[in-house]
Amino acid sequence: MDSSRMATPTDTNCLVNGVPGSLVSVRDRGLAYGDGLFETIRVSRGVATLADRHFQRLAQGAAVLHIPLDLQLVREEVVSRAAAIGSGLLKLTITRGESQRGYAMPPQPAPNRILQSSPLPDYPAANAEQGISLYPCTMRLGYQPLLAGLKHLNRLEQVLARSEWQGAEHAEGLVCDLAGHPIECTMSNLFVRLQHGWVTPALDQCGVRGVMRDYLLQQLASRGEPVAERRISLDELLAAEEIFCCNSVFGVWPIVALDEHRWPVGPHTRFVQTLAKQVLS
Amino acid sequence: MDSSRMATPTDTNCLVNGVPGSLVSVRDRGLAYGDGLFETIRVSRGVATLADRHFQRLAQGAAVLHIPLDLQLVREEVVSRAAAIGSGLLKLTITRGESQRGYAMPPQPAPNRILQSSPLPDYPAANAEQGISLYPCTMRLGYQPLLAGLKHLNRLEQVLARSEWQGAEHAEGLVCDLAGHPIECTMSNLFVRLQHGWVTPALDQCGVRGVMRDYLLQQLASRGEPVAERRISLDELLAAEEIFCCNSVFGVWPIVALDEHRWPVGPHTRFVQTLAKQVLS
Repeated sequence: MDSSRMATPTDTNCLVNGVPGSLVSVRDRGLAYGDGLFETIRVSRGVATLADRHFQRLAQGAAVLHIPLDLQLVREEVVSRAAAIGSGLLKLTITRGESQRGYAMPPQPAPNRILQSSPLPDYPAANAEQGISLYPCTMRLGYQPLLAGLKHLNRLEQVLARSEWQGAEHAEGLVCDLAGHPIECTMSNLFVRLQHGWVTPALDQCGVRGVMRDYLLQQLASRGEPVAERRISLDELLAAEEIFCCNSVFGVWPIVALDEHRWPVGPHTRFVQTLAKQVLS
Repeated sequence: MDSSRMATPTDTNCLVNGVPGSLVSVRDRGLAYGDGLFETIRVSRGVATLADRHFQRLAQGAAVLHIPLDLQLVREEVVSRAAAIGSGLLKLTITRGESQRGYAMPPQPAPNRILQSSPLPDYPAANAEQGISLYPCTMRLGYQPLLAGLKHLNRLEQVLARSEWQGAEHAEGLVCDLAGHPIECTMSNLFVRLQHGWVTPALDQCGVRGVMRDYLLQQLASRGEPVAERRISLDELLAAEEIFCCNSVFGVWPIVALDEHRWPVGPHTRFVQTLAKQVLS
């Protein structure tokens, strides 16, 4: 889209292809087909948190979707905006750009780059300190190994799962796959403490590979902590010693309740919280 | 979106909430999450073809996604635009509208309505007369029964399948599910003629329920022609007497080739073409 041709209400919280603005064309394939990717990046003290991991996931998604990505340009823009806002969230959306009607990719795609900033969400401090209650979502994640793990714009499953509860009683929702295996929460990943160590659900069929999940996997492994990615059953989750959910915005929230089940906020989770705080402070 | 506030380049081929325009907000959830639905409607002689079936599918999708839909308003706008353009395509997109960041649906959603018009595609007449060659797509449709059949905006699978071939040798591509069962083509549905009659793949796990497919199912059944919706195997498809693909834009294209396999353009397909022509003329 030629942003320079658009007369738009100025929106200093959003850059569209580097230009302040808040509008995209109806022909953008992000709108037409969810044909794109996004990252939500926490900014504190002017620095984009876990930026390399965000860019790595973005590049992986762009490779799968065959979206040409100027990663250097994207990185520079994010770094610059992070410094400018100091603290907050940056939501980066990359779409394949415009095309005529039809699924066929344009032969010369001109991807659109949308960078929106917003304040940090004001989650209650109690979420991290006392832990949260999970809502048991009935929406099941479908199977699509080709897209599993990616943070693409086809997110109707998450929208529907998140719509199952309102109010502050539940800070997150448990989402299972079609077979009933716990996979993740609506906006965060899941770790369960079993007898032999931490396990996080494998994301080879569905789910989003969160950058905080990747960071914690690497941190735990590098410290010799037992940690595995594999399919887990709901019974394993219910019998776990500790559970937490994590993402790169809020860090680590202990999970203390799901229906009638209760878990303590245990020492293993407290340790993982210290790992998260090293990058989120 | 308050369209009246936007100064946009005039685009008489597009109405956004009834107002000429070509832009939507970056906060539109259609862009953010593919959170919406669309219909592509053929217009000839000023009339929207199979309009009731399009609106019925749209309403079904809106019910599943919990998008409030003013169907009467949508219908009046489509009828009016169809009369105005006389001939062409109308692409109707309904999104949940804008929201702040996050998957949660806005408590008071204001859906956006985008109506784009374009000329009828100039497919070669030979497609319908001599039949087409199918490209064997390797992309597999994932399973998600909750969304199967709907024409929602999460269409990365179709985008990736359609990207597997270029050029005019193949007019469509065969798309199978994760188990290798033929489901549909990238932009059309599939019917195969087996010994006992027509069969079209069941769309309870994946795929898009095309309005031409529904029309033909009803027409064939009402004429006492044997026709069934069920899972079919690739072997059944390859051994079929005749095959065709259909949608509400081009009608019925006989399929005559897939890899080294060949099928005739048989009498059963010619009959189905007469049914399609009754509504597409």
